[in-house]
Amino acid sequence: LSSQRRAPTISEVARAAGVGRATAARTLGQYGYVSEELRNRVISAAQELGYQPNALARSVSTGRSATIGVVVADIANPFFGSFVQSITESSHEAGFSTLLLSTNEHLVEEIDAFQLLINKRVDGILVATSAQNVTETRHIQQAQSSGIPVVLIDRQVPDLDIDSVVISNRETTREAVSQLLALGHTRVGFIWGPKIKHRARYRRELTEAASHDIWTDGQRLLGYFDAYDDLTLPIDPGLVSTGEKTAESVQQEVTHMLKADNRPSAFFCTELEALIGTLRAVADCKLSIPRDVSIIGLDDTPWAEVVEPPLTTIEQPLVELGRTAASLLIQRITNTGQAPEPVKTVLQTRLIHRDSVVAPHQSRESRV
Amino acid sequence: LSSQRRAPTISEVARAAGVGRATAARTLGQYGYVSEELRNRVISAAQELGYQPNALARSVSTGRSATIGVVVADIANPFFGSFVQSITESSHEAGFSTLLLSTNEHLVEEIDAFQLLINKRVDGILVATSAQNVTETRHIQQAQSSGIPVVLIDRQVPDLDIDSVVISNRETTREAVSQLLALGHTRVGFIWGPKIKHRARYRRELTEAASHDIWTDGQRLLGYFDAYDDLTLPIDPGLVSTGEKTAESVQQEVTHMLKADNRPSAFFCTELEALIGTLRAVADCKLSIPRDVSIIGLDDTPWAEVVEPPLTTIEQPLVELGRTAASLLIQRITNTGQAPEPVKTVLQTRLIHRDSVVAPHQSRESRV
Repeated sequence: LSSQRRAPTISEVARAAGVGRATAARTLGQYGYVSEELRNRVISAAQELGYQPNALARSVSTGRSATIGVVVADIANPFFGSFVQSITESSHEAGFSTLLLSTNEHLVEEIDAFQLLINKRVDGILVATSAQNVTETRHIQQAQSSGIPVVLIDRQVPDLDIDSVVISNRETTREAVSQLLALGHTRVGFIWGPKIKHRARYRRELTEAASHDIWTDGQRLLGYFDAYDDLTLPIDPGLVSTGEKTAESVQQEVTHMLKADNRPSAFFCTELEALIGTLRAVADCKLSIPRDVSIIGLDDTPWAEVVEPPLTTIEQPLVELGRTAASLLIQRITNTGQAPEPVKTVLQTRLIHRDSVVAPHQSRESRV
Repeated sequence: LSSQRRAPTISEVARAAGVGRATAARTLGQYGYVSEELRNRVISAAQELGYQPNALARSVSTGRSATIGVVVADIANPFFGSFVQSITESSHEAGFSTLLLSTNEHLVEEIDAFQLLINKRVDGILVATSAQNVTETRHIQQAQSSGIPVVLIDRQVPDLDIDSVVISNRETTREAVSQLLALGHTRVGFIWGPKIKHRARYRRELTEAASHDIWTDGQRLLGYFDAYDDLTLPIDPGLVSTGEKTAESVQQEVTHMLKADNRPSAFFCTELEALIGTLRAVADCKLSIPRDVSIIGLDDTPWAEVVEPPLTTIEQPLVELGRTAASLLIQRITNTGQAPEPVKTVLQTRLIHRDSVVAPHQSRESRV
């Protein structure tokens, strides 16, 4: 579509539209107010003249495609949606378009996605990888060695020495669980743990399974163990969920835990779906938060404030995650001459105290 | 990356990995159980041999790129995330990869996205367009006329005669608001309406502004008017929010409505953010749901069940939306000889009755 034509300038678009240059610039640059009628005229004129917005215009002048690929595991998870939006915006400001692929947590689809993006001549790739160890990262290493920089986002791979931007999952969990332990909760449920075919009896089973789990989830389990280890308190493997990672499965497992003799008095939930399943189980068992059960949820969410009681949660810096990773990748793309040391950035989280955590058996209201 | 080599078969991968053909097929096809160790061996062998998963292999045999482009307005909105996942899965089953772009509701970015996707040689495009009228759809028409089929998803454009798959926004809203009116709520707040610089005094101001609004939002406002018109009840334009479409702005506007003399006794909320803002305002005003205020939310959400009271919501068929649109587009791509009539599919929603709707002034529990 008119790729041979010289790109018209904003002034030419303005002239063709019969508007001032400032109006054309505001319309095409998407800032400030332009009336509906003028906006239509500018867009029509721009299309007529074959105006090419930033990214394509840049690619002509630099020889790069000005496109980055973004590969995430599950675009239906709002967690990924949020940081992808941040990647898209940051890239756009730097003149890059983003092509996004979702792999549904399948490594083979991720390999497919890399091949497709390389065929489509992207300049670099951001990936929330499903690879669990370095032997599964040949596609990442091949891209790197063929001159296409890759930055890992949200998930590291042990022993893979490339750029990464992740959140402090282990330390965050350690601190949150430590707060529960410090209040006197010795039995803290951890939802969700790694998937195992049976309920775990030994800690080593969980540690082993966690090493094959999604990196973020495995790190969080280690942080949970850290908190207990810091106080040399014993761990009960039965307090770690090991079923499917769905709200329904969590609801069953947590109900089971809450009906046992020595039920947990607190839960740390690592995902919104885990939190929802836990809340449903607490309601099913006619228990009350925080009187009977304290809860901390990882990932803040707008509805944490509108439930009763408002939930104590941990906010992950999603905008910063996307922006930092995009800016690191673009830096790699634009400085291809160097062979710099990998940069491994770990972003901090923020605990938001609301009303779902109290010391065990402490009642805010007396029972009728 | 080895694009010249003949693609190895699954049997060749199996032989190289030293596993059975069934194991290789399970690993590469992502179904059934394969042990960690065998899975690693198969993936290594596949990468070594340059095994090309479905989409790329198909493109060699058909001359198509086996890639479809998906352009949505705001990937951070979980609504889009859900149906995009469904598009990705349906396309994958049919042997197509999907490249996704998010436009942040900017028409110019959408035009840019179309150019990029066409440059990247996609076979067809699904778009949740930001175009508000047919004069803004030249990029869509150009793609169509150059042989790249386009299917509109979630949003139609008036007078644009191409394939579309949308949800029955107008009828859904009409039915939900009718139920509130039938219960005796004559003052139903509509959150969110079109953005206007001031509070609307006349219905015609709202209708005019809605015609420049996002199509789905405009349709919902018309459905709200329909419900009142069906009963020839008067509309109070002051009950339609006209501020920024954010939870914060909604919270302010709804608080203002609830503090007025003749406050609304019910709300219809068209988005999750609108619902959250409304819930916060109700809490700020120390009012109780459903005793003082009934609420229906459009878009069901997992947390609607865990709040107190559980919220009555409308479930949109997001999986079906993605699947139907993807399958229509793929049908267009694979039957390019024909010039068929546009298909306009409208999907139905489902009202989920929970506990946030009662007749006005009806109390479930007596006050202390």
